[in-house]
Amino acid sequence: MIYWLDIFGVAVFAVTGALAAGRKNLDLFGVVVLGLVTALGGGTVRDSILGATPVFWITDTAYIMVAALAALLTVAWARWGRLPQNLLPIADAVGLATFTVIGAQKALSLGVNAEIAVMMGVMTGVVGGMVRDVLCGEVPLVLRQEIYATASLFGAIIFVTLNHLFPAQAVATWIAIGAVLGLRLAAIRWNLSLPVFAHEDKR
Amino acid sequence: MIYWLDIFGVAVFAVTGALAAGRKNLDLFGVVVLGLVTALGGGTVRDSILGATPVFWITDTAYIMVAALAALLTVAWARWGRLPQNLLPIADAVGLATFTVIGAQKALSLGVNAEIAVMMGVMTGVVGGMVRDVLCGEVPLVLRQEIYATASLFGAIIFVTLNHLFPAQAVATWIAIGAVLGLRLAAIRWNLSLPVFAHEDKR
Amino acid sequence: MIYWLDIFGVAVFAVTGALAAGRKNLDLFGVVVLGLVTALGGGTVRDSILGATPVFWITDTAYIMVAALAALLTVAWARWGRLPQNLLPIADAVGLATFTVIGAQKALSLGVNAEIAVMMGVMTGVVGGMVRDVLCGEVPLVLRQEIYATASLFGAIIFVTLNHLFPAQAVATWIAIGAVLGLRLAAIRWNLSLPVFAHEDKR
Repeated sequence: MIYWLDIFGVAVFAVTGALAAGRKNLDLFGVVVLGLVTALGGGTVRDSILGATPVFWITDTAYIMVAALAALLTVAWARWGRLPQNLLPIADAVGLATFTVIGAQKALSLGVNAEIAVMMGVMTGVVGGMVRDVLCGEVPLVLRQEIYATASLFGAIIFVTLNHLFPAQAVATWIAIGAVLGLRLAAIRWNLSLPVFAHEDKR
Repeated sequence: MIYWLDIFGVAVFAVTGALAAGRKNLDLFGVVVLGLVTALGGGTVRDSILGATPVFWITDTAYIMVAALAALLTVAWARWGRLPQNLLPIADAVGLATFTVIGAQKALSLGVNAEIAVMMGVMTGVVGGMVRDVLCGEVPLVLRQEIYATASLFGAIIFVTLNHLFPAQAVATWIAIGAVLGLRLAAIRWNLSLPVFAHEDKR
Repeated sequence: MIYWLDIFGVAVFAVTGALAAGRKNLDLFGVVVLGLVTALGGGTVRDSILGATPVFWITDTAYIMVAALAALLTVAWARWGRLPQNLLPIADAVGLATFTVIGAQKALSLGVNAEIAVMMGVMTGVVGGMVRDVLCGEVPLVLRQEIYATASLFGAIIFVTLNHLFPAQAVATWIAIGAVLGLRLAAIRWNLSLPVFAHEDKR
């Protein structure tokens, strides 16, 4: 079940990568690259930092296939259909929630402590989108947007705490996924955001 | 022979990095950094992802020396000579071809499967140029340009296929290098390119 | 003693990351991310390349705590106090000096040769700031600025040389830290810089 949510998250993140490529008029190769980077970037950086190499998509190539396919289908969909603009943020929230929990879980299974597991959860959730935006020549959305990374941070903390308290991992998993989803969807619905730090110096 | 082609590829890619630095008015340190990053970036990311650390240029420092020297010679050359504008794309194509084949070969020697070997070949060929462009504040050329990464992908597939079919690796190596070169030079000559995905949404 | 200098360097670099976030109007999460990336980026890339994973801040979480706290305190400080604009470059120079020496030392302790140790020292000192600038959508300052990376390079060479000549590591450490600091402060004081490579081609 978690595996299928993970695959679903990969597909959704690949779609956001492909759409970003479309806004920059990239060619088909660029579309696939942005799809792959957005979908697999977070987990790749997590695994490299933890030394869990070769990284996860080397041993299970389903991830690459799904991401590349999702990116290409986005192009076809944009050309011959109508992309459901309202569905995408919700699907993206599901991806964020799953990636966060899976990232924290993998870190814990490698024996790191609680703070690091939280950080790896957030990293798995947000780094892909950051690299996507940097490749598009933009300041990452996640650094300026409504509550996005904060929802991931909140969920990662809940997961690591509950995982410590309850023997059955399923409890922590589902409550944490629900927490990210709830906070993220509330942020979209009511336009919640963190305070901004605006500072001008004379350098 | 392959080793010398590899060194040649490193030198050529370092020259393209130095020229990009020149367009951005970077200082001499910036020139060397862009040269190193362009020449060694692809293989470094490949080795990190595969867990083949320390990465290749740690154990053979010839790579760093050649890249740094090539970057500095580019500055001297631009100041006192005339850079042969026509030769550069051809040399760059040779570098791309060699890096692709060497990347796929190294991945196979580490025991990954065919899809991953193809992906690692392309990554070795194009990631250095992508980091170069990002450091220059630009959307990577390879994501928008005429057939470049596609030539690398084509060559990597040919290499992995032939390598599977023939016992002698030399056959696969030379045919694949020829394939990348041929496709890339044809793309330059006739301005071939992949279709572009232009998509505007209301976000 | 070196450990505390290292922690001091982490705090100072996190402050420069937070200030960069303030110039781009990022939210509080963005401030913390830029603080962490600037403070820990160089060592993270160094450890990944050397295969010394999990990277240094996984096993000692004091680094993350100090960097995050320093980033958040910068926001409070900018709002309720006055940031001492003159102190910052000097503190930054201390961070650069310490990171350079610690990076080279760690590389040597992992058994690499002298050139690689020098390169890892410089990388530890400058990569964090480069990633910070790229995330802000700018060409890294260190590639265009007055003598900055060059001071790091100078100190790394001195450290590796002295470390080879003298049995007591403290000698090499303090002389090298002094060398980076001296050159960097001289560069700030008299506006020293490397020659710039300006090149226009017809591509």
